[in-house]
Amino acid sequence: MALIPRLDIAALEGQQLDPLSKSLPFGLPPMRLGDVGRQGWNLLAGDIPLPTAVIRQDVLLANSAWMRDFTAANDLLIAPHGKTTMSPQLFDLQVADGAWAITVATVQQMEVCRRFGVKRVLMANQPVGRLAADACFRALGDETFELYCLADGEAGLALLAEAARRNPPPSGNPLRVLVEAGFHGGRTGARTREEAMALARKVAVTPGLQLGGFECFEGVLPTPQAADGLIDDVAELARLAIDEGMFAAGAPVVISAGGSAFFDRVGERFDRVSFSRPVLRVLRSGCYLTHDAMSYAKAFSRIQAETTLKLPAGGLEPALEVWALVQSRPEPGRAMLTMGKRDVGFDAGFPVPVRWYRPGSDMKAPQPMPDRHEVVALNDQHCHLAVPADSPLAFGDMVGFGIGHPCTTFDRWSMLLMVDEQYGVTSALRTYF
Amino acid sequence: MALIPRLDIAALEGQQLDPLSKSLPFGLPPMRLGDVGRQGWNLLAGDIPLPTAVIRQDVLLANSAWMRDFTAANDLLIAPHGKTTMSPQLFDLQVADGAWAITVATVQQMEVCRRFGVKRVLMANQPVGRLAADACFRALGDETFELYCLADGEAGLALLAEAARRNPPPSGNPLRVLVEAGFHGGRTGARTREEAMALARKVAVTPGLQLGGFECFEGVLPTPQAADGLIDDVAELARLAIDEGMFAAGAPVVISAGGSAFFDRVGERFDRVSFSRPVLRVLRSGCYLTHDAMSYAKAFSRIQAETTLKLPAGGLEPALEVWALVQSRPEPGRAMLTMGKRDVGFDAGFPVPVRWYRPGSDMKAPQPMPDRHEVVALNDQHCHLAVPADSPLAFGDMVGFGIGHPCTTFDRWSMLLMVDEQYGVTSALRTYF
Repeated sequence: MALIPRLDIAALEGQQLDPLSKSLPFGLPPMRLGDVGRQGWNLLAGDIPLPTAVIRQDVLLANSAWMRDFTAANDLLIAPHGKTTMSPQLFDLQVADGAWAITVATVQQMEVCRRFGVKRVLMANQPVGRLAADACFRALGDETFELYCLADGEAGLALLAEAARRNPPPSGNPLRVLVEAGFHGGRTGARTREEAMALARKVAVTPGLQLGGFECFEGVLPTPQAADGLIDDVAELARLAIDEGMFAAGAPVVISAGGSAFFDRVGERFDRVSFSRPVLRVLRSGCYLTHDAMSYAKAFSRIQAETTLKLPAGGLEPALEVWALVQSRPEPGRAMLTMGKRDVGFDAGFPVPVRWYRPGSDMKAPQPMPDRHEVVALNDQHCHLAVPADSPLAFGDMVGFGIGHPCTTFDRWSMLLMVDEQYGVTSALRTYF
Repeated sequence: MALIPRLDIAALEGQQLDPLSKSLPFGLPPMRLGDVGRQGWNLLAGDIPLPTAVIRQDVLLANSAWMRDFTAANDLLIAPHGKTTMSPQLFDLQVADGAWAITVATVQQMEVCRRFGVKRVLMANQPVGRLAADACFRALGDETFELYCLADGEAGLALLAEAARRNPPPSGNPLRVLVEAGFHGGRTGARTREEAMALARKVAVTPGLQLGGFECFEGVLPTPQAADGLIDDVAELARLAIDEGMFAAGAPVVISAGGSAFFDRVGERFDRVSFSRPVLRVLRSGCYLTHDAMSYAKAFSRIQAETTLKLPAGGLEPALEVWALVQSRPEPGRAMLTMGKRDVGFDAGFPVPVRWYRPGSDMKAPQPMPDRHEVVALNDQHCHLAVPADSPLAFGDMVGFGIGHPCTTFDRWSMLLMVDEQYGVTSALRTYF
């Protein structure tokens, strides 16, 4: 399948910064987003008000390249989930590293992609509501834009069929529908193979739609073993549908699965099935790009230990950090920091302090955080850090935190800063949450 | 004390909307924020893509008026915490209803206030970092702007003293410092009255600073009884400092406490102490404005049952709702909705479904949600709703959710819609998170 072209990031980088954004020095004169990297700002020099979220550029680039190499080595494609970062500049990096499409969860996210020139979107949800369905078909009027979306039931399909009647797409650019396989007690998705096959038959004959394949989201399952069955359903459904002749001649056949924790199993299980026509095996992981310091770090260790797929050298490393200042040392065992629920995700566990630095001191670089420093509570704007009696932390020190679940940290920031290995600011990333 | 003048909201309402914002119809032509209310949009008519966050205007206005009347009847002032909404348009409403100041947590939030003309800010935190301290003093160069901030220790005070030397404020506009009283195991704040008094003495003689009074944040304590002691500390510290002659002649003396759960206790306890000069008793509650359907609803029931203060007629009611669509009914006992962690707070419990509506049906208005509909999980973009076998909910239905902890729902939205009693859109509120 053709790769998609690079994005139109120049328009974004020409945007005027909102000087009221978090992370910008106070009282900033008018400045374009694209000029942030030219200011010579450095986090450790105290040029950036904290808290701030930074992305370590070298780590991010290495993660992106690792996934490029991993998918290429294993006959996989990736449509990275854009909801994680909602940053068109990062979408552009992913496209440069060979992303087959950008995945989104909502029409608003699809519109962000389209605005910046993403030419293939996989909306990993069944559109619902007239506004959403109509927007999908209107987007297809641009024949350079391809859209895949999901269906998991008759009612959803009926909505798409109606919307196709209201807004008939160009004959060469139908709405490509992936039928979603689910499981009892799961999220969306047909509960049985029979239901999924019946739905696929209807998709295949609905004007304006084209059967694109099958998919699942295995990420809601607790273990890789539990995910295997669902992934197998997807491959088997595609095999059956191909054999039944459901796919249009020449139409791409896609099988896809979604999460960032079990992507090895997706590759392994998809590889076990033989198909009588070419099939695109599409991962939709989103979190690999910045990775994390917690649950995905554990998941990746398991992948490295267990997978039978080819693993490129190196591996994923955490690229996203939130930095805050010690605002108070009110007791020997406690430090309060300027970071709260407003600044960092907490749904996958509290952030973990990994580095600290004393601005204006003779420290050459951030130091690893000594043991027994642990976040014990987050308020809206405060972090309660339990510290040992001999903690070096003092009022005004900087602390860098590793995060869990990148999605819920990215969405706290309308702008994130990219930094080099010395924490010099190399660029600013705009997000669209 | 003089009230503060209304804000400059015209500039905000003249802003061009970003058509990629959540809640806006897709493919919107260029439009000013202030024109949203003139489009005749109605949530129930399907004019707004869901999920969306709406504020019921009549409820919000009643809540704001209730707090105005409550504070006036009980010799209290309010500096509503702006971090809750970060919406200058709502700050303006609060100022119109007599707010003495707007409270903020960070310098970025103070800068948002200043940009739109808030003339008195209470920063309920000790500034930390050179950038933050310098920004506070630079702001004082505008002699129409008054700033209160906190100090809870020598290190924080030293930072302010240095910043005052670098940026001496006009002699008539010092930085007004409230010394923070804390408690062992708490958040920030001096751990003993002795420490607080010693710090206040130093504040009082530091050039560029003025002792403004004492404050605490009682909201981290679990019960109103537990909060009483901390609130009493604040009043007693002020009494002692007045008697010791620490306050400048003619300078306002402020005692203040912060949360939205025990504000009755603040009023009651502050009222027990006699002072030998006028003292401003300042609440900083932020959540009263939209209130909630969960923890603050319970807290308010307690206030109504227990307080000895004068309560105006009526009371606080939940004004903030998040609406989503039923995206799938994959099993008899489950509905999946288009709302996730990206759209609604979950740190004070999952949102509660309160109303539903079937667009295009002959339903005249949203119906109360029948019993046994309960959110059991939220993913980034999905809500798992457990429903009874006889649930009326079908694909495409709208569900309105009550929320807990307004702060963590507001911050999911760069724009929220204000609606009338029929869910017609009356205006759009911009936020600055």
